[in-house]
Amino acid sequence: MKGAAYMGGGRLATVPVDVAPPGPGEIQVAVAYCGLCGTDLHIVHGDMDARVRTPLVFGHETSGTVAAIGAGVEGWRVGDPLTVMPLVWDGTCSACLAGHQHICQNLVFVGIDSPGGLQQRWNVPASIAVPLPQGLDLRTAALVEPVAVAVHDVRRSGLQVGDHAVVLGGGPIGVLIAVVARNAGAHVMVAEVDASRRSRVAELGIEVIDPSSADMVAEVERWTDGVGADVVFEVSGAAAAARSATALAKVRGTIVVVAIHSAPRELDLQRVFWRELRLLGARVYQRSDFERAVDLLGRGLIPAEALISGVVPIEEIASAFDDLSAGRAMKILVDVAGEARA
Amino acid sequence: MKGAAYMGGGRLATVPVDVAPPGPGEIQVAVAYCGLCGTDLHIVHGDMDARVRTPLVFGHETSGTVAAIGAGVEGWRVGDPLTVMPLVWDGTCSACLAGHQHICQNLVFVGIDSPGGLQQRWNVPASIAVPLPQGLDLRTAALVEPVAVAVHDVRRSGLQVGDHAVVLGGGPIGVLIAVVARNAGAHVMVAEVDASRRSRVAELGIEVIDPSSADMVAEVERWTDGVGADVVFEVSGAAAAARSATALAKVRGTIVVVAIHSAPRELDLQRVFWRELRLLGARVYQRSDFERAVDLLGRGLIPAEALISGVVPIEEIASAFDDLSAGRAMKILVDVAGEARA
Repeated sequence: MKGAAYMGGGRLATVPVDVAPPGPGEIQVAVAYCGLCGTDLHIVHGDMDARVRTPLVFGHETSGTVAAIGAGVEGWRVGDPLTVMPLVWDGTCSACLAGHQHICQNLVFVGIDSPGGLQQRWNVPASIAVPLPQGLDLRTAALVEPVAVAVHDVRRSGLQVGDHAVVLGGGPIGVLIAVVARNAGAHVMVAEVDASRRSRVAELGIEVIDPSSADMVAEVERWTDGVGADVVFEVSGAAAAARSATALAKVRGTIVVVAIHSAPRELDLQRVFWRELRLLGARVYQRSDFERAVDLLGRGLIPAEALISGVVPIEEIASAFDDLSAGRAMKILVDVAGEARA
Repeated sequence: MKGAAYMGGGRLATVPVDVAPPGPGEIQVAVAYCGLCGTDLHIVHGDMDARVRTPLVFGHETSGTVAAIGAGVEGWRVGDPLTVMPLVWDGTCSACLAGHQHICQNLVFVGIDSPGGLQQRWNVPASIAVPLPQGLDLRTAALVEPVAVAVHDVRRSGLQVGDHAVVLGGGPIGVLIAVVARNAGAHVMVAEVDASRRSRVAELGIEVIDPSSADMVAEVERWTDGVGADVVFEVSGAAAAARSATALAKVRGTIVVVAIHSAPRELDLQRVFWRELRLLGARVYQRSDFERAVDLLGRGLIPAEALISGVVPIEEIASAFDDLSAGRAMKILVDVAGEARA
């Protein structure tokens, strides 16, 4: 059995994987696919060297089947399809006790803070295994995690049927937010500077605009009959987007901060005051978001194939990251099982 | 009859006031007291010359009695005590139609955009007159408007019994927010750089801290057993306070932007994301906030006398603004009725 590991210092390697039996309370996953995301890119670029312990088998957007079951685990059978919600909380901090376990103050993010899914056999706590419906193919199911992010962001925004939502950033998460918001009955506009990403958004039938050339405020005013957007999702991480977000939202509108902003950003607090705006942070997902994501994918409501720009074997993971770095790809999946797939 | 007017170019004058009878739907107010606030200071400094039409009889923190009643006005008798909620909305814009009349997109702020209460006789629409209970003295009642601001801010924050609230800024509005939050069952800490203001806050039995010398984050951590503040009210308008606010709030905590920030401010959006914080703008008040403010003052739950640092006749208004500019005063009332008081 094999896996992919980040070795530190910006180096990747294919590594052999020990197949220890699952411990008590654990499930052994035969990983099928694992998606690569922006956080993985940060790891591989060495941006998170202070946090991760190397060698780290990373990866947290997974699908697979149950390979073996540890002592005391009930409700699962070998061969059951599953995905893994990669969060382990302590259950005792003030955030957990207030019901916000997903942003536990001592959260272990599986695949960053502990071994992840880029390996052919993977032991995980049964508590974070999430069953998949039989009809959902495992390639599509590798999108559950990013779809759950989008579900969480949309749920947190309080978006309602008929609302106008602007999504700043048309990468995988931005597109998924747009799709989930549209499924929820909203009118959606995506702002994206990259032309090829704009084309991909347009092909999904979603209104798209280039914020580097268009007058965003005027366009959103026109689009909303002068009212402004009910919800603005800031997914780009760009300083300019943070500044424009407050100008796009209607009176009492909502801005959701989805992106990671590596530096403090200038924000128009006068506008926040004047229009009584609401700015919300949204991070990862709750179990209900994960299950809703499984449901949306299972019912074919997410255009998975339009988002998956490539599938590579474990050995070609380095070139996949080159494509992601260069902005040449949307979602790349790693075919973890490869020839080992049943 | 006389009044005080802003003449433009930073000049103030005492002016004679015509006593026209109230028009249909209007009430004529015999103004007793009118408080001076930070917005008035901006007017007098010429900062709002682009907005105001001079000469402007300004002032919007008023108390008085009914002097005369226009045609079609019901429910009022001459002599009834009243205050005036100085907002007139259009009732037709998208904000009004959504129930947010107080932040109408074409709001007329009475005393800024139309004549205010610094005159002995003042005709106002009966719709914005708010009755006062008989037992509430008119000097205290001049505080209804700023108390309504505080009530609105606290209500908007979602503050709950037992919460920990930090108020950044110990001027009149900051102190009123602290008092209203304490009345609502919260633990309150005020951060204020000015020593005399800190003394005033401490005399009210409210915990107070100097953010220029203390380690605010450490102090709030200690005060909340490591959890962080449930609510942070940003009332100072200072860039440093905007930056610190995100560091003080707990996971899923709320920051309320009460102050007017004249320039874009740097904000730690990474922290907003990481802790799923909520940032809310809060501006003026709704009718229910105004009525709640009357109720709180009527029941003696606001330490009015501790906040009123002086009462001056109309003729001495210029020196009152000098004191406000120099930070030598909290709330100064103008005794508008003076010798004309019944």
